[in-house]
Amino acid sequence: MASLVRSATLRFLKPLGNLTLNDAFNHPRTQTRSVRAFSTTLSPPSKAVVYEQHGPPDRVTRRVIQLPPVEVKENDVCVKMLAAPINPSDINRIEGVYPVRPQVPAVGGYEGVGEVQSVGSAVKGLLPGDLVIPSPPSFGTWQTHIVKDQSVWYKINKNSPLEYAATITVNPLTALRMLEDFVTLNKGDAIVQNGATSIVGQCIIQLAHHRGIHNINIIRDRTGSDEVKEKLKNLGADEVFTESQLEVKNVKGLLSGIPEPALGFNCVGGNAASLVLKFLGRGGTMVTYGGMSKKPITVSTSSFIFKDLSLRGFWLQNWMSTEKAKECRVLIDSLLDLAREGKLKYEMELVPFDNFNAALDKALGKQGSQPKQVINFQL
Amino acid sequence: MASLVRSATLRFLKPLGNLTLNDAFNHPRTQTRSVRAFSTTLSPPSKAVVYEQHGPPDRVTRRVIQLPPVEVKENDVCVKMLAAPINPSDINRIEGVYPVRPQVPAVGGYEGVGEVQSVGSAVKGLLPGDLVIPSPPSFGTWQTHIVKDQSVWYKINKNSPLEYAATITVNPLTALRMLEDFVTLNKGDAIVQNGATSIVGQCIIQLAHHRGIHNINIIRDRTGSDEVKEKLKNLGADEVFTESQLEVKNVKGLLSGIPEPALGFNCVGGNAASLVLKFLGRGGTMVTYGGMSKKPITVSTSSFIFKDLSLRGFWLQNWMSTEKAKECRVLIDSLLDLAREGKLKYEMELVPFDNFNAALDKALGKQGSQPKQVINFQL
Repeated sequence: MASLVRSATLRFLKPLGNLTLNDAFNHPRTQTRSVRAFSTTLSPPSKAVVYEQHGPPDRVTRRVIQLPPVEVKENDVCVKMLAAPINPSDINRIEGVYPVRPQVPAVGGYEGVGEVQSVGSAVKGLLPGDLVIPSPPSFGTWQTHIVKDQSVWYKINKNSPLEYAATITVNPLTALRMLEDFVTLNKGDAIVQNGATSIVGQCIIQLAHHRGIHNINIIRDRTGSDEVKEKLKNLGADEVFTESQLEVKNVKGLLSGIPEPALGFNCVGGNAASLVLKFLGRGGTMVTYGGMSKKPITVSTSSFIFKDLSLRGFWLQNWMSTEKAKECRVLIDSLLDLAREGKLKYEMELVPFDNFNAALDKALGKQGSQPKQVINFQL
Repeated sequence: MASLVRSATLRFLKPLGNLTLNDAFNHPRTQTRSVRAFSTTLSPPSKAVVYEQHGPPDRVTRRVIQLPPVEVKENDVCVKMLAAPINPSDINRIEGVYPVRPQVPAVGGYEGVGEVQSVGSAVKGLLPGDLVIPSPPSFGTWQTHIVKDQSVWYKINKNSPLEYAATITVNPLTALRMLEDFVTLNKGDAIVQNGATSIVGQCIIQLAHHRGIHNINIIRDRTGSDEVKEKLKNLGADEVFTESQLEVKNVKGLLSGIPEPALGFNCVGGNAASLVLKFLGRGGTMVTYGGMSKKPITVSTSSFIFKDLSLRGFWLQNWMSTEKAKECRVLIDSLLDLAREGKLKYEMELVPFDNFNAALDKALGKQGSQPKQVINFQL
């Protein structure tokens, strides 16, 4: 076994130049060159989507690589991954446009769900067979086996639907925090958002609806927008407008029985952001969490002075670094409960790992609007 | 006397159409048509800058009108105005571009200082000869005599320099509140602002300097900018840059020994606002209180998400309507103390009331940058 590891290591080192295996795994503990005694527990080899440099994801992540086994130390847990999504932020990280650039070579992916395969001797509270997610999310979920310290893993309800367990943090938790952290909303209040068809957008609709909060939604003009409206209304949307429908002097005149929203969400920028601002009532807050149009946000002086609007931003990764993140796991449980009860849903497409490249192309938008792509490592 | 009032009223009503004298005075109490007994105290007639419709101030306020005496009721105070400034917000109000449009015909002006001339029988705490300001500021200070309820008037230190007493609220109080209300600043922290030569800008420099807060200032490119820099540095500015000096990749590289500012002020918009945003540190706040360039504020998505910037607005008139405004008068005293001690100063030009039109032209910027124009009713 020891010699197998060694030779695997050496074979693997070659294509990555003079970088060690550790870098590829983002696994700083393992010094595979000094192989331990035969009693050491090793992970199975792992198949992983590795990128060796930042750049366009469809160029730099084309290869699925076989990574050699690594040691499972006393505090480590070896997890066999079951499912992991391709999120826009995963793409940004690979592109290197995120402020936190993973050290390359790196394994892609940031959230997912897996089953505990083996545990180190000092691990408490986790057993083989447990369903776990990395919480807070962390690098390298696009691989079949991950070995990380027990503190990384959070055991979730075994009855959680896999695709929701794999995707519950990055998008649904963003929606939940943004509804909670900026403005105190009471039943009967209203929010407005653009990019309403995004996963976060769909979660906002449902979470707001459950709380009796009216929600006004803005979507792009495209063929099939009537079906999209219908779909969002079925999730709990009160109003859905295309951008062109809002080319009127007084957008608020389009609302009936909904108060002026105190909170708005923007994941698009440009005109779609201006529309959110137009809906907001005096003293309202717009939270930006994405910029899908790649256009900046333009605001009039009077919006700030006379309308007293506040513009803020939300980034889950930043939230995770704050004190508030302590409650992260409790919130995950509540979101998974909703998913299990069918009260939180969004469209996903489960894709075999072998079809990763096709899934990535879809996630990159090469085939127009597509459901969230989720790698299923079991298919 | 009674018949004099009546005839004055009728004479005055003519040019104003079917509006009553009350409207012109913004003086809702007086029902001059039912004239009281001879014992009634009357104000002297008042010379006032009246506008009968909204529009360009140099067109609609050309006339100084003689207003007839009004009754000084038991809770009223008649004040002989001594000085009143022409502020940009006064101009906006006349233009009708302010969200709160004074009912026309109206007397211009919003702050000023005067001397108590006579008081109604139920007035307490104010005596003829007292120096008073309308606090919070209120409509109609561009006239020689004002009659308003005693609650309007605040008695200030008799040794206050007149031109500072006349201008202490709208600009200096804005500077003070903006330094206090958005970010907790400690000695050694830093702020950044554009429009640093404005009166608010100059007050921010001085108030920050007194508190040991570094201040970074951005001014327009124009001839004489070296003298302007020198002047601002004499007030306590740490750094002064013209916009063109900041056309560099890393504006923060221009600073030495000054921490990244947590708070910025914008009264210009456009590029000058973007420069304030560039200086701000992670999590910083930019407060907009003016839009001199008439250009909007453009912000990148990443400023909100990754840099966690907040954009807010400040409007003193709104602040005055909140609970916080209770402390307004105490703050005015502290600002007047600073002015008396020479620790708060800004350039002003005192102009005789008869030269109002020339002063207005200067305030409108027709002669380039000019000191703040302050009407002196005694000249």
